[in-house]
Amino acid sequence: MAKTAAILIIGNEILSGRTQDTNANFIALQLASLGIELTEIRVIPDDEKTIINVVQDLSKKHSYVFTTGGIGPTHDDITAECIAKAFNVALEQNSEAYDVLLKHYGAENLTAPRLKMAQIPAGATLISNPVSAAPGFKIENVFVMAGVPKIMQAMWEHVKTFLEGGAPIFSITVSCGLPESVMAAQLGAIQARYPALSVGSYPYFRLGAGGVSFVVRGTDETQAHSAAAEIEAEIKKLGDIPVKF
Amino acid sequence: MAKTAAILIIGNEILSGRTQDTNANFIALQLASLGIELTEIRVIPDDEKTIINVVQDLSKKHSYVFTTGGIGPTHDDITAECIAKAFNVALEQNSEAYDVLLKHYGAENLTAPRLKMAQIPAGATLISNPVSAAPGFKIENVFVMAGVPKIMQAMWEHVKTFLEGGAPIFSITVSCGLPESVMAAQLGAIQARYPALSVGSYPYFRLGAGGVSFVVRGTDETQAHSAAAEIEAEIKKLGDIPVKF
Repeated sequence: MAKTAAILIIGNEILSGRTQDTNANFIALQLASLGIELTEIRVIPDDEKTIINVVQDLSKKHSYVFTTGGIGPTHDDITAECIAKAFNVALEQNSEAYDVLLKHYGAENLTAPRLKMAQIPAGATLISNPVSAAPGFKIENVFVMAGVPKIMQAMWEHVKTFLEGGAPIFSITVSCGLPESVMAAQLGAIQARYPALSVGSYPYFRLGAGGVSFVVRGTDETQAHSAAAEIEAEIKKLGDIPVKF
Repeated sequence: MAKTAAILIIGNEILSGRTQDTNANFIALQLASLGIELTEIRVIPDDEKTIINVVQDLSKKHSYVFTTGGIGPTHDDITAECIAKAFNVALEQNSEAYDVLLKHYGAENLTAPRLKMAQIPAGATLISNPVSAAPGFKIENVFVMAGVPKIMQAMWEHVKTFLEGGAPIFSITVSCGLPESVMAAQLGAIQARYPALSVGSYPYFRLGAGGVSFVVRGTDETQAHSAAAEIEAEIKKLGDIPVKF
């Protein structure tokens, strides 16, 4: 059966609008290339009860859950503690994480706040952090990563070694300058002829001009090419020039 | 009691990673300025059962729910139909929406796919769309907007006239070049002294340099300034120069 995934972005800074999240998009693209179906993204605050409930819920529903945020040294970093509670295990000093931090900071600079980053749920596997040392971790099917994009992306290199994917999802985009509504009937018919594909229609307004991108997605490359060719043909029939990529 | 809100982004294109969502960030900033607390963001696929369940759930839990995406003329635009089902009302041709589309397209160009955009849940109030005519709508506490950012932002001008906010949330950022861990204890103490404020710590890596932004948020401007001043003083004690904005 196809693997499914959820992304859980933990952080008041996203909900306040202060920060535009980009981690979800990065992970989404990675999952598509691995053939893992991302079926939901949730953004929640740094709130203990919420984190525990949502982690338990997502962990049950999906093959994989990827969290970002809340694993630093300050008082508002409560993710590790909450994940331990979600899985009903102790939060304890992880000796491997301790060694990593000791090597990075040196004994004289391994202060209490920095040691907090060695507090990991019992039984978890560490995720390495080549940027700033403090590790993420994996417990059951939940991967816990940092919120800073540069660190999260570096952790992803380790995370992806744990994932079992499926057939990569193949995607073809056909764009044109027509309004999407003149292609609606044709597009619906093409979707009906290719039930195994997902055919989407995304209008855009850019540089003062409007148009639409039709996106064909699926694991069957031959079918995807065939559906895209049909879309191109319909656009040409309407006197416009399709651009495929 | 403070009003809370949820944002529901509906669209396969966000989950596939094809599109980086920016609508949630736009709405988040608007809600903060209106004093409405955004407590969750969810991204879900164009899937009927999922949309119905999540809309019902969010509508019960929050003062306001804002959805984007899925209200266009093509086969993959199923949001209006799903919202009607979520509230157990008919989806029907809305005469006001019909008039708007008739005026915009002219009788000869008001094709079936375009008429689909006049199908609105019974009892809903229209949300005007000055960009491309096809309206959004409000039903109970759920506001249904387009997914194209330019259209969504134009619709927001109408949406916000329906909202009852609270005291605007005041935010002060104090940045410095220190690693966040050296400020962890002081920051925790400041948070403890100002329980009505939210004090966050957000490390960054930009232009090859690292640093951290401390963010104080709350409805009491005087308290926020006082907490920010304490953060500045602690940064200075550590020999760095705080930058407040």
